[in-house]
Amino acid sequence: MRMTSETVADGVREQLFTIGEIPGVLWTPAGGPGPRPLVLIGHGGGSHKKGWEVVSRAVPYVTSCGFAVAAIDAPGTGDRPEHPEVRRLVAIVQAREAAGEPVGPEWRALCETVASQLVPDWRTALDELRTLDCVGDGGPVGYYGLSAGAETGIRLVADEPRVTAAVLGLVGSEWLMSTARRITVPVEFVLQWDDEGSPRDCVMRLFDALGSTEKTLHANPGSHFRVPSFELDSSVRFFARHLGAAGGS
Amino acid sequence: MRMTSETVADGVREQLFTIGEIPGVLWTPAGGPGPRPLVLIGHGGGSHKKGWEVVSRAVPYVTSCGFAVAAIDAPGTGDRPEHPEVRRLVAIVQAREAAGEPVGPEWRALCETVASQLVPDWRTALDELRTLDCVGDGGPVGYYGLSAGAETGIRLVADEPRVTAAVLGLVGSEWLMSTARRITVPVEFVLQWDDEGSPRDCVMRLFDALGSTEKTLHANPGSHFRVPSFELDSSVRFFARHLGAAGGS
Repeated sequence: MRMTSETVADGVREQLFTIGEIPGVLWTPAGGPGPRPLVLIGHGGGSHKKGWEVVSRAVPYVTSCGFAVAAIDAPGTGDRPEHPEVRRLVAIVQAREAAGEPVGPEWRALCETVASQLVPDWRTALDELRTLDCVGDGGPVGYYGLSAGAETGIRLVADEPRVTAAVLGLVGSEWLMSTARRITVPVEFVLQWDDEGSPRDCVMRLFDALGSTEKTLHANPGSHFRVPSFELDSSVRFFARHLGAAGGS
Repeated sequence: MRMTSETVADGVREQLFTIGEIPGVLWTPAGGPGPRPLVLIGHGGGSHKKGWEVVSRAVPYVTSCGFAVAAIDAPGTGDRPEHPEVRRLVAIVQAREAAGEPVGPEWRALCETVASQLVPDWRTALDELRTLDCVGDGGPVGYYGLSAGAETGIRLVADEPRVTAAVLGLVGSEWLMSTARRITVPVEFVLQWDDEGSPRDCVMRLFDALGSTEKTLHANPGSHFRVPSFELDSSVRFFARHLGAAGGS
């Protein structure tokens, strides 16, 4: 693990890092060692580790809860090299969407191509992050990811016992059903009522499949990208409840 | 309006009152005049103005938000006199439930009998409560009521422009659809995933019918009476967001 930059602003330290070929970012409170809870944020499709939906969550998780927060680029995004197969599949899916056609089997292939690399990368990142003084080994771990971040996240949370709470949603993929059944940690699941890409019936079937005793569905009107800002606030409280506070500002 | 008792404990003043034949209770911060936001809490079936689900919400609304909170007895409950028609309908519905039969048309008749008296009583109570120094005229008003409290609440919120935010749910009555369409204020709507009395499909249809631009559905596993305690916390924040804080403790 190699730190490539460090900046501090408004009480938050941002460190860019690489672990082998994995580029990532870590946000922590500017002062104070770990152990502290760590939240992993999986970015959405077409975004990257420092996309707005990542940063807008990372900052309050650090400042309100004192958590460490990490994000890594998915294959073919951000500071990763071009990924020819991801690029090919994205082009097919985008062309179908532009033509108003169903996305076809390439959508599932894209999700599986990304997840097959990203899930092991998240586990590697988790190993390394917990060796840092500012994170520490042994604190609880949460995962936040909607849409493409949930495609990977459902697989990660199902297989990674160190993750003990997750905010997921905006996904209704039928091929995730059996994986969702293996999730047993508390989950807050987000649904957009008028999401054409992830129809509410499919999202609710996936919510229903989750094996968790505590799971809560938050549904709001609007399309895929219109999750209301109060859900950010809700995710802060969800993680504070399940990961515990680390003494934030 | 006549105050019949007053007690203060843990910073909360509880005043029992009657307005004509309406028995009610008002909780306010022990010190400090209005105006302050007022939350009306409609109790569930078989309960009364001081039932556990009312008091457990009233206390944090007062202590966390500085709100005034009021509840009144539904016809035939608490300190109200026997209501022969309500009693007759309840007996029929309960006998059908005990026999595992559908509740029949008497359920709707019961809901309408209660609401036809309780909605005007709430409006009368609202008039009177806002004349009190400890509530004040002009502050925003919220309504909280699940199950039977939502049967009345949906009708009240649709017709009473002074109510500007509501927590409703555990109800899916088909006869409330057109009334729900007339509601335009922000609503937090609670659904229990395994609620046999209010099946999720019916509850979601009613949520879908709400005319509100901001409406949020919170669904959790479990039966009718098993709403998780974090939903109480969520309702505190919902009302704080929409009614504003009054400077609580």
